[in-house]
Amino acid sequence: MRFAARLICLLAAVAALPAQAYDILQPLPERVYVPAHNPQTPDKIALGAQLFFDARLSYDGRVRCNDCHDLMAGGESKGRTPAARPRLERDPPTLWNVAVQTVYFWDGRAPSLEGALREHLLDGRIMAFPDEAAVARRLATLPGYPERFQAVFGEAPDAQRASEALAAFIRTLLTPDSPFDRYVRGEKDAISPQAKRGLKVFDDLGCLSCHFGPNFAGPAPGPAIGPGEGFYELFPNHPGTEYDARYGIALDPGRERVTGDPGHRRMWRVPTLRNIALTAPYFHNGSVDSLEEAIRVMAKTQLRAELDEDTVADIAAFLRTLTGRRPQLPLPQLPVEDGRVAPLSR
Amino acid sequence: MRFAARLICLLAAVAALPAQAYDILQPLPERVYVPAHNPQTPDKIALGAQLFFDARLSYDGRVRCNDCHDLMAGGESKGRTPAARPRLERDPPTLWNVAVQTVYFWDGRAPSLEGALREHLLDGRIMAFPDEAAVARRLATLPGYPERFQAVFGEAPDAQRASEALAAFIRTLLTPDSPFDRYVRGEKDAISPQAKRGLKVFDDLGCLSCHFGPNFAGPAPGPAIGPGEGFYELFPNHPGTEYDARYGIALDPGRERVTGDPGHRRMWRVPTLRNIALTAPYFHNGSVDSLEEAIRVMAKTQLRAELDEDTVADIAAFLRTLTGRRPQLPLPQLPVEDGRVAPLSR
Repeated sequence: MRFAARLICLLAAVAALPAQAYDILQPLPERVYVPAHNPQTPDKIALGAQLFFDARLSYDGRVRCNDCHDLMAGGESKGRTPAARPRLERDPPTLWNVAVQTVYFWDGRAPSLEGALREHLLDGRIMAFPDEAAVARRLATLPGYPERFQAVFGEAPDAQRASEALAAFIRTLLTPDSPFDRYVRGEKDAISPQAKRGLKVFDDLGCLSCHFGPNFAGPAPGPAIGPGEGFYELFPNHPGTEYDARYGIALDPGRERVTGDPGHRRMWRVPTLRNIALTAPYFHNGSVDSLEEAIRVMAKTQLRAELDEDTVADIAAFLRTLTGRRPQLPLPQLPVEDGRVAPLSR
Repeated sequence: MRFAARLICLLAAVAALPAQAYDILQPLPERVYVPAHNPQTPDKIALGAQLFFDARLSYDGRVRCNDCHDLMAGGESKGRTPAARPRLERDPPTLWNVAVQTVYFWDGRAPSLEGALREHLLDGRIMAFPDEAAVARRLATLPGYPERFQAVFGEAPDAQRASEALAAFIRTLLTPDSPFDRYVRGEKDAISPQAKRGLKVFDDLGCLSCHFGPNFAGPAPGPAIGPGEGFYELFPNHPGTEYDARYGIALDPGRERVTGDPGHRRMWRVPTLRNIALTAPYFHNGSVDSLEEAIRVMAKTQLRAELDEDTVADIAAFLRTLTGRRPQLPLPQLPVEDGRVAPLSR
């Protein structure tokens, strides 16, 4: 079934992509899918950036989005939990290039970025608001925000609109012009001979049958595949290897927890490989500390392949060409309470 | 004694400032004191900005300078402690315009910004490195930093050079062009009639005898007063008011703890009033939540004055004109470990 699904996705993706229609290797697109109900505007993006860095968007005022998705670095947290929060069972994935995803969270349970953000606001381990009304109350009492929301949305702040502004900002977080992108655009020396060997073996082994497309994560949202239609694979595909015990990678039921279907046990959204050198530790549980070990684990658990160290190094060299150019973002200027410290509204 | 000291400082300041030689009211200077041993260079400033936002410059990797001195806001912490740290007995002061100070910490115990920063690195409640060698070891093992230090200093990273880079960055954190600055530069309508009344009563009451100069904190470092020569006042000047009990403001011995001299009990570096509307809560112990209450406390404890509410409001209106233009800083791009998570060196 998942092979059929893969084939359909592949064909659909191939059929509908105009520019690189038949290329399984694609550069990062310059434009990304934006849902019609949440168009990008400069003011909305700026408001989202402000919210992203404002700890007052957490119920206890102690956590910024950036604490787990660090835009000064790999867009994730290097496995380090904010001190004010418990360690999550699943490692926060990078936010760079998530606009090229079709579903959100490791198990794909959110069909939209906006929905994933709303869930973050209400998750007791993350932003921890007790309900959406509490989000609206908080934003209504923070200086500057009611006016900004009014200007952007023509409405008062609420959880939905906060999520929309955050999503608009997050959709701008693209890392173009990686050596790989320059290579597929025709700059033949943009990647090293070792990286080229790595790309070839990556293809020969079959890695590309899941990690294809502009984000190396399957088809990107667009005409070919609707947003909300996920692209999932088994991990580990072959359980029972030494790695299960060492890294606990088979313990989490993955997508089964979302659908209740035992056929979805250990199914996961295929994660991006872009900027993979920036985003250790690896896998849904953040259990593997090095890229080389992650390559060994994937080869063995997904493809029953034992790789020699030269091959691992070649693949790693290829994967390192997927590190893009992080955009130069401004440090947000948050509105400050005028001449007082008020308790955060509850 | 302190009156004599005040007079000397005043005269010295007046004598040596060329442009606004006889003005007790001065705009924020465009150029600030920079010690000869630590000249400003663009690369050094950029390195300092990077360090300022890098949690790996704390021993446990959990605290960025920005957590207590938030440059997205008032340059301080709104009285909110990072979850990974204990609440300090003294409230982190704003970093905006500290280049215009002569000494550092509330009690002035650091005669240089560089020295204050070195102390932060080793303070067990702040960055918490056990010794300077541990700072050097940490920086030597972080990706990118050895090369950056080599480029900036021609030397390997160490605590001294990290402090110099941080100081170079922090010296750029100026907030010019407040309404008050525009007013003293001749733009007569830059502040409201209420703020003008507030400025007059601020002068009439005697507030300006301590809160004068370009930072409203006494003389700025320069030819008039050497860096490291502090400008101190008693607070509370008249102990025994209702406010002592309510806010605990007389409990801390202040500068006596530095010098051991009982004559220095409750002496404090005169803090800046610039951006005061952004930096609630107020006073060394962060005990007062509103600007209006801080004005009442100061009038009563320093000058035995009881102010009516209109006068408090006028003074507050004047103080609100001291909020300057925060510079647009870039979000730093921190170097990231390549394809791995390494334990932080100890």
